[in-house]
Amino acid sequence: MQAEIITIGDEILIGQVIDSNSAWISEQLNKIGVNVHQICSISDDIEHIVTALQEAENRADLVIITGGLGPTDDDITKKALCKYFDTKLVRNQDLYDKIVKFITKYGYELIERNLKQADLPEKCKLITNNYGSAPGMWFEKNNTIFISMPGVPFEMKNIMTNGVIPQIKSHFNTNTILHRTIMTHGIPESYLAEMLNDWDKQLSEKIKLAYLPSPEHVRLRMSISGDNIDELKQILRDEEEKIKKIIPQDIFAYDDQTLQEKIGLILKERKQTLSTAESCTGGNIAKLITSISGSSEYYEGSVVAYSNEIKNTVLGVKNESLIEHGAVSQKVVEEMALGVTRLMDTDYGIATSGVAGPKGGSKDKPVGTVWIAVASKNKVISEKTAFGNRRDFNIRHSTSKAIDMLRRFILFD
Amino acid sequence: MQAEIITIGDEILIGQVIDSNSAWISEQLNKIGVNVHQICSISDDIEHIVTALQEAENRADLVIITGGLGPTDDDITKKALCKYFDTKLVRNQDLYDKIVKFITKYGYELIERNLKQADLPEKCKLITNNYGSAPGMWFEKNNTIFISMPGVPFEMKNIMTNGVIPQIKSHFNTNTILHRTIMTHGIPESYLAEMLNDWDKQLSEKIKLAYLPSPEHVRLRMSISGDNIDELKQILRDEEEKIKKIIPQDIFAYDDQTLQEKIGLILKERKQTLSTAESCTGGNIAKLITSISGSSEYYEGSVVAYSNEIKNTVLGVKNESLIEHGAVSQKVVEEMALGVTRLMDTDYGIATSGVAGPKGGSKDKPVGTVWIAVASKNKVISEKTAFGNRRDFNIRHSTSKAIDMLRRFILFD
Repeated sequence: MQAEIITIGDEILIGQVIDSNSAWISEQLNKIGVNVHQICSISDDIEHIVTALQEAENRADLVIITGGLGPTDDDITKKALCKYFDTKLVRNQDLYDKIVKFITKYGYELIERNLKQADLPEKCKLITNNYGSAPGMWFEKNNTIFISMPGVPFEMKNIMTNGVIPQIKSHFNTNTILHRTIMTHGIPESYLAEMLNDWDKQLSEKIKLAYLPSPEHVRLRMSISGDNIDELKQILRDEEEKIKKIIPQDIFAYDDQTLQEKIGLILKERKQTLSTAESCTGGNIAKLITSISGSSEYYEGSVVAYSNEIKNTVLGVKNESLIEHGAVSQKVVEEMALGVTRLMDTDYGIATSGVAGPKGGSKDKPVGTVWIAVASKNKVISEKTAFGNRRDFNIRHSTSKAIDMLRRFILFD
Repeated sequence: MQAEIITIGDEILIGQVIDSNSAWISEQLNKIGVNVHQICSISDDIEHIVTALQEAENRADLVIITGGLGPTDDDITKKALCKYFDTKLVRNQDLYDKIVKFITKYGYELIERNLKQADLPEKCKLITNNYGSAPGMWFEKNNTIFISMPGVPFEMKNIMTNGVIPQIKSHFNTNTILHRTIMTHGIPESYLAEMLNDWDKQLSEKIKLAYLPSPEHVRLRMSISGDNIDELKQILRDEEEKIKKIIPQDIFAYDDQTLQEKIGLILKERKQTLSTAESCTGGNIAKLITSISGSSEYYEGSVVAYSNEIKNTVLGVKNESLIEHGAVSQKVVEEMALGVTRLMDTDYGIATSGVAGPKGGSKDKPVGTVWIAVASKNKVISEKTAFGNRRDFNIRHSTSKAIDMLRRFILFD
């Protein structure tokens, strides 16, 4: 079966709001085996809504509609639904009583604008909204199911979870879709595809494969659908085992777990601690590590040493090293990593020093050159990377590389 | 004229990725007077892409397509474009040479998968991609313009800004739309609207006004369209002067200049320096300050002091203060700010200490409580904020508040 999502609202079309509802709805539908075929954002305009509903009906078995159900004049979804389903608004007495009770409870005035929320298209079946006055609405036309919900995310999510999902499950006889995402670091997308080429060729046609790259990592996603969940799970597990044998050290996690989450788990499990000394990444490593709630258990802190003076006075990098090799050098970055490990008395230390760009740089050390070091109390390793002059990219890329170097240092060195 | 956006990629339809590209593209098109009528996300499937292109052609003068141009087998947009425009792939020698140069420069192997990126549909006009191997492509069919770009956001944004936008401007005869964005900090959206109510009422109907709130600031955008640019500019300037009189200290910049850019300009102009001491913001202030190229001129560095020990040993916060008042207190945050100013020998220091959440907190210091201090060598001020238990929001909000406190400290104290 095919589903489509239609989001209604000018704020999306002028770029003022990012449509995050659709991704969430898609994920929920996927989990119960409903395949989302298309997502459309359209304007607050009756003709446009009616046309979009007609087009969706021709293609889909299920159409989920969000937005345009509020009490202000720009909300015209109900009018459009009445037109499309050839019906009229009638007052729903239960909903009316509920709205009156809600408004009087909070001491607000009863105004017509709010009471009108109880007028619903006659042909719809109501789906309860526990958090607001606009309920979900279920329609049927020519064997297609249409469900309309408000666009306010927490109201929509509540209606979906408690009303829509159970009703879709019982109405449609759906296949299960399973996904498994393998999170890799260290191999660019095209080379990863090369390395996995033979494996890919033997892959069952049932499995759909996708490479999803970012400056931080490459995600490899396998998807499979069918009716026997245990069998599907086993197929994905088997393929995962084969991939693991090809790139045993480059997989850092599964199913969208991030590097910073993973390193947190590793450190927690080992009851070990981390500190960082950042020059070119400017606090971004600290920012990512501390974005995880509970990171204070294993993370002591960072010295963002942007100037040579701080590298020397706070981190104890030798002045000779700075003068002889320059701040962006293997020597200095290793002293930084060892320095912060000592200063903060942690098991591990990470350090970065580079030319993030777009300016700076020299013939020897072109823009993009970044040295990264990982240290324990008695050992230090370092690597150089260089990826062009995009400041933002360089910071993100070296941040993730630094965290991944620590992962490899702990697990494989 | 009407534009539509089509984003291609299963990752959006299964909810793994939120389509943020479309909002950005819509915003850019709106700025040059192009109205986005519809946004569609569709699957990596040739038939589906061809159908979507056909439907869009019937409705729109301009169709922007993103995604599906990578080097792996799931990227099939080029094949679909060839089918739709009845053309074939031919090797583009310039692009081929550029790709070879790029790959060899970084010491990678030349593999067919990457070289194939130089094969483009014969009927397209190329639009340069400065950051990747997949260029933008410009097609025309039955008076509709189609532009295909990769979905990687930083590549797409570069192609749009440098290639697509200027070419759309010269191809279509659009009205000039001028925007003036006033960047404010410190007044919540609804209160700002109250304060500007009288001004808003006298505003000419020609000017469209939008409040754009974020955890960092509230942007106030005025838009006006017409043909006499000088006249339009003068109208916007006049209104801006009126707003300035109502909220003289709360405007920190104009036209999407960020707080971190503004503070950089202020410090550079005064030849003054800054350091930071971060607990709950975990490096996010450092990260934002150093996201500006050239920040090493005025930024010395940061101590991310996540543990009490580091606050004491590195920043010199008194153990009595930590014991008596706790880490999240006015006393400690002021000592942190003064401590880092001394340690890094800077003109100013910023410090934060709080409970970012979602866990932690106590009756006295509920989750969300954040103390922020700004110091010079001989003066320190501090403020407390509290905004609930959303970790990400708390970090972003206190980061921007801290930088804005420094701006007010320098300019108005």
